[in-house]
Amino acid sequence: MRLFAQELQVLNVGLASFADEIVQAGGKATHIEWAPPAGGDRAAGWALARLVNDAEVEAANRKAFGSYLAAQPQLAGIGPARDVIPGMSEHRILHAGPPIEWERMCGPMQGAIVGALLFEGWAKDHESAKRLVERGDVTFAPCHHHGAVGPMAGIISPSMPVWIVRDGATGHRTFSNLNEGLGKVLRFGANSPDVIDRLRWIATTLYRVLDAAFAEAGGIELKPLIAQALNMGDEVHNRNAAVTSLLLRWLVPAMLRSRASRDDVTSAVTFIAGNDHFFLNISMAACKLMLDAARDIPASTMVTAMARNGVAFGIQMSGTGDRWFTTPAPVVDGLYFPGYSMADAAPDLGDSAITETAGLGGFAMAAAPAIVNFVGGTPEDAIANTAAMGHITLGRNGAFTLPAMNFSGTPAGIDARKVVDTGILPVINTGIAHREPGIGQIGAGITRAPLDCFAQAVTALAAALPDQ
Amino acid sequence: MRLFAQELQVLNVGLASFADEIVQAGGKATHIEWAPPAGGDRAAGWALARLVNDAEVEAANRKAFGSYLAAQPQLAGIGPARDVIPGMSEHRILHAGPPIEWERMCGPMQGAIVGALLFEGWAKDHESAKRLVERGDVTFAPCHHHGAVGPMAGIISPSMPVWIVRDGATGHRTFSNLNEGLGKVLRFGANSPDVIDRLRWIATTLYRVLDAAFAEAGGIELKPLIAQALNMGDEVHNRNAAVTSLLLRWLVPAMLRSRASRDDVTSAVTFIAGNDHFFLNISMAACKLMLDAARDIPASTMVTAMARNGVAFGIQMSGTGDRWFTTPAPVVDGLYFPGYSMADAAPDLGDSAITETAGLGGFAMAAAPAIVNFVGGTPEDAIANTAAMGHITLGRNGAFTLPAMNFSGTPAGIDARKVVDTGILPVINTGIAHREPGIGQIGAGITRAPLDCFAQAVTALAAALPDQ
Repeated sequence: MRLFAQELQVLNVGLASFADEIVQAGGKATHIEWAPPAGGDRAAGWALARLVNDAEVEAANRKAFGSYLAAQPQLAGIGPARDVIPGMSEHRILHAGPPIEWERMCGPMQGAIVGALLFEGWAKDHESAKRLVERGDVTFAPCHHHGAVGPMAGIISPSMPVWIVRDGATGHRTFSNLNEGLGKVLRFGANSPDVIDRLRWIATTLYRVLDAAFAEAGGIELKPLIAQALNMGDEVHNRNAAVTSLLLRWLVPAMLRSRASRDDVTSAVTFIAGNDHFFLNISMAACKLMLDAARDIPASTMVTAMARNGVAFGIQMSGTGDRWFTTPAPVVDGLYFPGYSMADAAPDLGDSAITETAGLGGFAMAAAPAIVNFVGGTPEDAIANTAAMGHITLGRNGAFTLPAMNFSGTPAGIDARKVVDTGILPVINTGIAHREPGIGQIGAGITRAPLDCFAQAVTALAAALPDQ
Repeated sequence: MRLFAQELQVLNVGLASFADEIVQAGGKATHIEWAPPAGGDRAAGWALARLVNDAEVEAANRKAFGSYLAAQPQLAGIGPARDVIPGMSEHRILHAGPPIEWERMCGPMQGAIVGALLFEGWAKDHESAKRLVERGDVTFAPCHHHGAVGPMAGIISPSMPVWIVRDGATGHRTFSNLNEGLGKVLRFGANSPDVIDRLRWIATTLYRVLDAAFAEAGGIELKPLIAQALNMGDEVHNRNAAVTSLLLRWLVPAMLRSRASRDDVTSAVTFIAGNDHFFLNISMAACKLMLDAARDIPASTMVTAMARNGVAFGIQMSGTGDRWFTTPAPVVDGLYFPGYSMADAAPDLGDSAITETAGLGGFAMAAAPAIVNFVGGTPEDAIANTAAMGHITLGRNGAFTLPAMNFSGTPAGIDARKVVDTGILPVINTGIAHREPGIGQIGAGITRAPLDCFAQAVTALAAALPDQ
């Protein structure tokens, strides 16, 4: 009888509806947000139990995170993909995301590949390009298998010039193609003559000018440049306005002192000055370099890549090497340009989530409130996003500070265990491509990495470790 | 007896020590921060009573603030001071702050004037320069009397090139000299041969290149440029890193397409790219233009200028026209470079407080947390500074948004009444010059405009209005 006489003190865990009923009946209930690890996946739950508080895993993660922090990416120069990317054989095309065959590729990726074949001169038209591919005369591989990254379709063919980012300490190199600007561009699947002409101009004029500038000025350290940009409203994924200006400020004097002709310098500078996203590909290669330093450390649960090919979303994890853990790529519920909706969108696409994997992009959202503002959020939402990422990461990167969070470092080093345990999913800032080739970007938004990839990775690592 | 039995509920107004005593004795007291208006100045208090809630004053302020908001400063070009500044006669030197005679000028201002005479070729050495001045062969006037502004000593002589900022709507023009960079520079009173050589280079090579670029590209709207910079960590007074990059990004393609030689373009770009403060003088002229639009509106208490000559701090107010209200300039209690202290500092100097008068600089501190961080504060302090300025201003400038304050506009249009009433003093970000000429900058910090200027202005305006 005393139980019924006293006031109820209810803590509710699990389904919110139990608490709701009590509140509706006039009682008080506190609902605790909790969900079983791995969304209730039993195997992943056991795997998690194996890996949590494990001394070997903790030591491996400290080593992986330390190596990521120690990497010193320098923008070292530019070169043709065929000459500088290891293993870049003729008739090979690199693409974004985990491995995928031609038949299963999404529209924008197929469109971009056709464009690359036209650019290379391997085919005369769309039909002959498709026949070439279907005859098996072209081989495909993920950019990530060749130390490279590419935004959206992420197509790199042998004649394309690529950025070379180099680790000052180890000499390790990573690569990315050059940003074409917005509008109809190859990376969104466009392949019309103007797109191909622009690729030719990039491979000739722009290449000449940039190559001459690097010959004049040597390289530039990228961490200080990115650090400045984070203090200037960029998160160096969806916003690169400040860092592109800073890069240009460094490049122009070198271009002018170089052997490049005045006409070439003029067109190169005009092109870069007109493209706020020019730095994105460099940012991606720098992030790839920092994360490559953390690869292949046995027992580490630090995520070393997140990438999408428009069909599958995949991650790689340090302790499981080059193995991909994939799941169907989601369609982004973002802000669509007028006349477009989710029904028009290709699923999530591109290697650019490498920035979030490195603690930038969505993880550094507090640096770039303009991005959440654009999709209807507030600066508080931006700070909340970054703060949430602190729950699934191994530490803070003191080289990348966030003014709005009292200059604390950005949360970095995704721990796959923590993602599975908390259900907090890595936030990713992204562009959205039309699902048909040739149309281009139709929106932008904020999406989340799917839980399943992390559950698979954790399960695989636990299975590979000895029982305890 | 009941009074002594009940618990004390104390609200304390005025001296805090009364409340402290109660708290020390174990009681509770709430202290209300309040001070009498105008620091207890009886005349200013009566003047305030005359002006507060006065329909004519309110209407005048709405008009003044509206005119300030409506101004559209464009960077229109560059020209020699003698050709473009109205009333700029030969052997006239413009200086920062309110009017002052040679004998009373501070060290850095005298040093800069000697440098200007050497640059003009009116004198061969320091001695002949001083004789020329003491013979009365040179006339002095505040920059502000000629539609101009200059940072620190603010010296403008006839042969110096000046920025021309033009109001798109009214055609009104304002001017500022060109920024020389940091280190030993004229504006801090240095006048050694390298300083004069740099002034000559600015007046020839840099002038040629900029003039050719403007001939090629026309002008550029400054409000959108400043708005972008506020979203990139600048407050366009003590921090101009982003906006200088954005300006350069616009200038370089125009320079390259222009008639300027490649060598000249190279040296001009290298100079600008190496000087984060290059935009400061343009920012100042833009602020001057926006505030000139609010001048000379009878009965308005909106402040139209705050300026310092290193001896006096002066303000001008819309309703009192070109009259200066001055008080001794304070020495800035800022962050001094190693080896220097307040004992070495010249009192507050320069026209650059025009940026705060226009709602930028210290008033937009929330945009630039790096500045308070530099002097030991936090981003919260930066936001608090901007929020406090909201109590002494007429409104918000929606063209200049602050990401850290949910993209609200910067507080702008200082109401002299509100300063006198609340005792909240306008915050100013500033550099600090050595009191001796030729040494240069020795620190930077955050200072406050003195209350006395505002009390004088309010008193003068009330006296000029009919009794009620």
